[in-house]
Amino acid sequence: MAEHTITSPANPRLKALVALRRRRRREETGRTLLEGYDELALALDAGVHPHELFTCDDLMADPAAQADVVRRAREAGAEVIRLSRQAFEKVAYREGADGFLAVVPAVGVTPRELALPDRPLVLIAEGVEKPGNLGAMLRTADAAGVDAAVAAAPMTDWGNPNVVRSSKGTVFSVPVATATTEETFGWARERGIRVVAATPAATSLHTDVDLTGPVAIAVGTEKEGLTDTALDLADIHIRIPMSGKANSLNVATSAAIILYEAVRQR
Amino acid sequence: MAEHTITSPANPRLKALVALRRRRRREETGRTLLEGYDELALALDAGVHPHELFTCDDLMADPAAQADVVRRAREAGAEVIRLSRQAFEKVAYREGADGFLAVVPAVGVTPRELALPDRPLVLIAEGVEKPGNLGAMLRTADAAGVDAAVAAAPMTDWGNPNVVRSSKGTVFSVPVATATTEETFGWARERGIRVVAATPAATSLHTDVDLTGPVAIAVGTEKEGLTDTALDLADIHIRIPMSGKANSLNVATSAAIILYEAVRQR
Repeated sequence: MAEHTITSPANPRLKALVALRRRRRREETGRTLLEGYDELALALDAGVHPHELFTCDDLMADPAAQADVVRRAREAGAEVIRLSRQAFEKVAYREGADGFLAVVPAVGVTPRELALPDRPLVLIAEGVEKPGNLGAMLRTADAAGVDAAVAAAPMTDWGNPNVVRSSKGTVFSVPVATATTEETFGWARERGIRVVAATPAATSLHTDVDLTGPVAIAVGTEKEGLTDTALDLADIHIRIPMSGKANSLNVATSAAIILYEAVRQR
Repeated sequence: MAEHTITSPANPRLKALVALRRRRRREETGRTLLEGYDELALALDAGVHPHELFTCDDLMADPAAQADVVRRAREAGAEVIRLSRQAFEKVAYREGADGFLAVVPAVGVTPRELALPDRPLVLIAEGVEKPGNLGAMLRTADAAGVDAAVAAAPMTDWGNPNVVRSSKGTVFSVPVATATTEETFGWARERGIRVVAATPAATSLHTDVDLTGPVAIAVGTEKEGLTDTALDLADIHIRIPMSGKANSLNVATSAAIILYEAVRQR
């Protein structure tokens, strides 16, 4: 089959790729970047149809063994373009590039578009700034089996390449949505989902609250926690007991502990 | 009082500081670096006696408000040395340097030197490679109220500046030790501590096992998990249930989930 090969780092298609690192460009095009063999395999498993796949044999750990993902991407409709090492290194955004970089449809809908079961477990992350944190939370939420994750008033977007990467590709398998804080909590109320807000000021412990029904666990930013708006709109406040001197848990860790308490109860 | 002021980035005392970034140099001197106002305050709270404190007013968020820590460090026996901004930026190792860098006694003893209560909760982290992971685990372990943390056959050391940093200073408040895997598990056996090993191959869930007695939670590396040696020496194997596609939890997250299950049971 005919395949393009690009060897010049100045090629305009490569510039278009690099432009997708910007949120605005992702929103304009409805597309985002997905880098890495494992992440692409996960996305394909989740039914993603990549628009384009850029590959570099020189950077692949095992081109023969990894040809399956190239084949699957092509079958899913992707145009496959080979790059020289120099060209690939220009477009790769992570250290230890492994020769796989795809352009895929952007992820993230509004909460109302989420299809949920009767007794959903949802994660709401408000105001997250660091893409790595949002991705890490989604990776944990995926392991805990959440039905959806909503980013409320985020400072980053689900399509951010670092979210995709730190999520280990789970942005393509877990239904994700974005909305303002008011929209998110309003949607939960309409859907009969009880919003359980994590805040150090709460009197109830996370283990004392019934998490077996339709529940959304809401966490805020590492520095500030949930906004007053979110705390006002939540149905109940909980806290994780903390001993020790530092007296703080990373927000992704806090989310993990509460989600797994829900898993235990359910 | 008399204070040194160093303005030249070529000053030999600064070279000695930079040399402490190397593990060998930390082992030779029994000293390590501690950067950051919050981290230094935590260490002082924990009773640490810094040898030296290097400061830079230009980089401090609020020199007047933060003078308390300078005073406390001096009272604890530290020589205080002011640096020019240029000099400080040469020795600072983290982004967003805040004008505080101390030389403190190295931490970490052998497991036998740990003073433990009757029914201790211990974290054993085997083979950890990334300083950030070891520090993050300790931060969580501190919040969960562990009595000690042991690094078994680590690829990093507790005094690594990035461990200190990501631990939020808890390396100075939580008793920490280092040993080989055999020594660590042998010590636990002698002390009557049941070692609960986290491995995806286990049949028991972490919530099905009694974690109320003298218990050590053992976790391995993110890539490989615990070694066969560790799994053989452990008293029981457990796993965290995982749904989802990516089917993996970060090792620090796994440790957090199991430690907090122990907290819940206790």
